Amino acid sequence: MATLYHVPLSPFCRKVRLSLAEKRIECELIEERYWEQDADFLRRNPAGKVPVLKIDGMVMAESAAICEYLEDAYPEISLMPKDPVGRYEVRRLVGWFDDKFHSEVTSKLVYERVNKKVMKQGYPDSKNVKFGAQRIKYHLDYMAWLLDQRRWLAGDVMTLADFAAAAHLSSLDYISDVDWNRSEVVKDWYAKIKSRPAFRSILADQVPGFLPPQHYADLDF
Amino acid sequence: MATLYHVPLSPFCRKVRLSLAEKRIECELIEERYWEQDADFLRRNPAGKVPVLKIDGMVMAESAAICEYLEDAYPEISLMPKDPVGRYEVRRLVGWFDDKFHSEVTSKLVYERVNKKVMKQGYPDSKNVKFGAQRIKYHLDYMAWLLDQRRWLAGDVMTLADFAAAAHLSSLDYISDVDWNRSEVVKDWYAKIKSRPAFRSILADQVPGFLPPQHYADLDF
Repeated sequence: MATLYHVPLSPFCRKVRLSLAEKRIECELIEERYWEQDADFLRRNPAGKVPVLKIDGMVMAESAAICEYLEDAYPEISLMPKDPVGRYEVRRLVGWFDDKFHSEVTSKLVYERVNKKVMKQGYPDSKNVKFGAQRIKYHLDYMAWLLDQRRWLAGDVMTLADFAAAAHLSSLDYISDVDWNRSEVVKDWYAKIKSRPAFRSILADQVPGFLPPQHYADLDF
Repeated sequence: MATLYHVPLSPFCRKVRLSLAEKRIECELIEERYWEQDADFLRRNPAGKVPVLKIDGMVMAESAAICEYLEDAYPEISLMPKDPVGRYEVRRLVGWFDDKFHSEVTSKLVYERVNKKVMKQGYPDSKNVKFGAQRIKYHLDYMAWLLDQRRWLAGDVMTLADFAAAAHLSSLDYISDVDWNRSEVVKDWYAKIKSRPAFRSILADQVPGFLPPQHYADLDF
């Protein structure tokens, strides 16, 4: 049995949770208030952040390295194509969401609105919130452009790229920051991924003090 | 023949250059002033950053995805172990340097001192420079701790983790920001990696307006 130290709305934790669930690896979830820098937690993970995964007798950090490990060690249900070019495209998109989308959108909306309050770090910076709300449009359009040509983000099969994107969008959706009316193909894509059994635990998340909108857990939103 | 669009002191570009050279993939280097947002360049790479690699009829971005592609498509000279745990450790460390080390050290020193001047974005922020100069000590100590137990950073063979680390340290060394006297094992490790043929092009780099210190290209520093 694996153990994942996580926080509910972290897109990096959600990506790992989705990978674990899709691969049917049983995992206990433990919420970790990593910003309180608990000594035990820092011993497990000198980088001092989540996700941290205990699996196969090891303690692992860095969501990208964890997901690649799960792919290498549990290849039966695969989230990557076999050919180098297909794998490149998956990794490029994972990087796109975890790096560019994260810094332009998730960190500007989820972190400002939720993390700051939970971590008692003051009020949202309205300049950041405005910037994030603006940039998400560009990213939704980019996704629509990809999905006009492909069934899933990186090609014709569902991959880790879809989970990375869905991890960010689902966190943003929890605080009503995704305009699903902007693009029909993006909405259809999210409906498909949301209805997977792997998504259930994410739709059941509750952050005290923040009530998700009615449509958050609704498969027919 | 591959083509790499790069800037000389970018650690992400240097990591790709080292991988290409170690794998003996011939590559033409083209310096790309990406911050000028040239339309042609943006067409090649919507993320608007370097490195961008033209190879095998494709145009690739995101240094992590590029290095994994080179590993998948050119496995003869490998920069990754074969076992999932060994591969995890390489990727964890690449993430450590490209994420944590980069945000705490490289972006605070190289970007403040060099990029700001080259990009005409004003003067270094002394608070950032001070922070970076402080944090590099912690990171050098972490490397020393790893290298006390292992020949190379991720284990007993040289891997992409060593190239990622050396890419950052070499950029910092160009502006004299590495105290090589802090740790004998780290210095020995850098001497080993610096003497590889793959490192030659990096030691020959010149950034107009910034003269590297005498020891920068010296294998016996």
